[in-house]
Amino acid sequence: MKATILFSGGKDSCLAAIMLSRFFEVELITYNFGLLDNWKQAKQVAEKLKLPFKIIKLPQKILDEAVEITNKDGFPNNGIKYIHQKALEFASQDSKVIADGMRRDDRVPILLLSEIRHLEDKFDVHYIQPLMGYSRKTINILVKRFFEIKEYKSEDFIGAEYEFELREAIKRKYGVTAVEKIFPKGHSQTIVIRYNEI
Amino acid sequence: MKATILFSGGKDSCLAAIMLSRFFEVELITYNFGLLDNWKQAKQVAEKLKLPFKIIKLPQKILDEAVEITNKDGFPNNGIKYIHQKALEFASQDSKVIADGMRRDDRVPILLLSEIRHLEDKFDVHYIQPLMGYSRKTINILVKRFFEIKEYKSEDFIGAEYEFELREAIKRKYGVTAVEKIFPKGHSQTIVIRYNEI
Repeated sequence: MKATILFSGGKDSCLAAIMLSRFFEVELITYNFGLLDNWKQAKQVAEKLKLPFKIIKLPQKILDEAVEITNKDGFPNNGIKYIHQKALEFASQDSKVIADGMRRDDRVPILLLSEIRHLEDKFDVHYIQPLMGYSRKTINILVKRFFEIKEYKSEDFIGAEYEFELREAIKRKYGVTAVEKIFPKGHSQTIVIRYNEI
Repeated sequence: MKATILFSGGKDSCLAAIMLSRFFEVELITYNFGLLDNWKQAKQVAEKLKLPFKIIKLPQKILDEAVEITNKDGFPNNGIKYIHQKALEFASQDSKVIADGMRRDDRVPILLLSEIRHLEDKFDVHYIQPLMGYSRKTINILVKRFFEIKEYKSEDFIGAEYEFELREAIKRKYGVTAVEKIFPKGHSQTIVIRYNEI
């Protein structure tokens, strides 16, 4: 049975992929709007995991909508969550099992239980969050066993997360000062640089 | 690294055990108050899973307290949750990683996120709920791949869940009519009768 995992190449989506690969034929998908080629970061990590990878273009209007939400809010949480929900809906049209790397300690772009059930019912899909029952410190132990990772700040490196095209789109429409106001400085991301198969 | 799984022999705790056995040296624990020998059901299932099994006696006063909570409420949810929380605390004194078979669709004895964090901090323990990111229908697919199960009604068969000693204790103190009032009829449980190793 195929399971499509929304994939950024960060430690959480990598661990989710490894966990599900025991039960499903895992396929990694990175969504992109065509503004940046940051999906290449995810592709390189997918190759290290030796798992099939697809890049899929999302409609520009989803990014436009996320830009307006984010600009109105003055912070990125709801804009990022909006993109993630749309990406889950797109994945649901292509696969009966979808998954991501959300953790119980995540704030964004975590879905409410009611939103999860709505998605599952509307698209008749299984939505799995394999890491949801694990704390941050437990995840860190498992990550250490499987991966070497690089931590980076969002302003220093461009990863495959939605955040980066959202920043770019806001920069193009509202200027660099808007980006600096909206996105907190020093926000950490990770990318997997090595997979130690067990 | 050892992980202690609170184990009843039902489909959820069995699936949780199988999932974690990839990452940890799993040990199954069934807690019992010495009123019934229903722990034997769990032991038989543990043998089918070929995983180490321990039965541990919990202090009688925990059951006494659960009886009073349940009798006062007029329904069993909080009494069962009380026993489960105490069992998790006991397990935390013996193991750095503890786990159970809770699902996101469970109502009882699920802990709030604040209670989970409190437990982890107080006992410096990793508390994993491997099934938390899976819906009931996804669990059912995985269960089918690994196990043959028997479904039964609580009034027809005595499994290793906390519910059964709680029923017995209430019967001894408040009589059989109290049990019939408090526990909903037709409540379904499962027990694993075969493990199909993959």
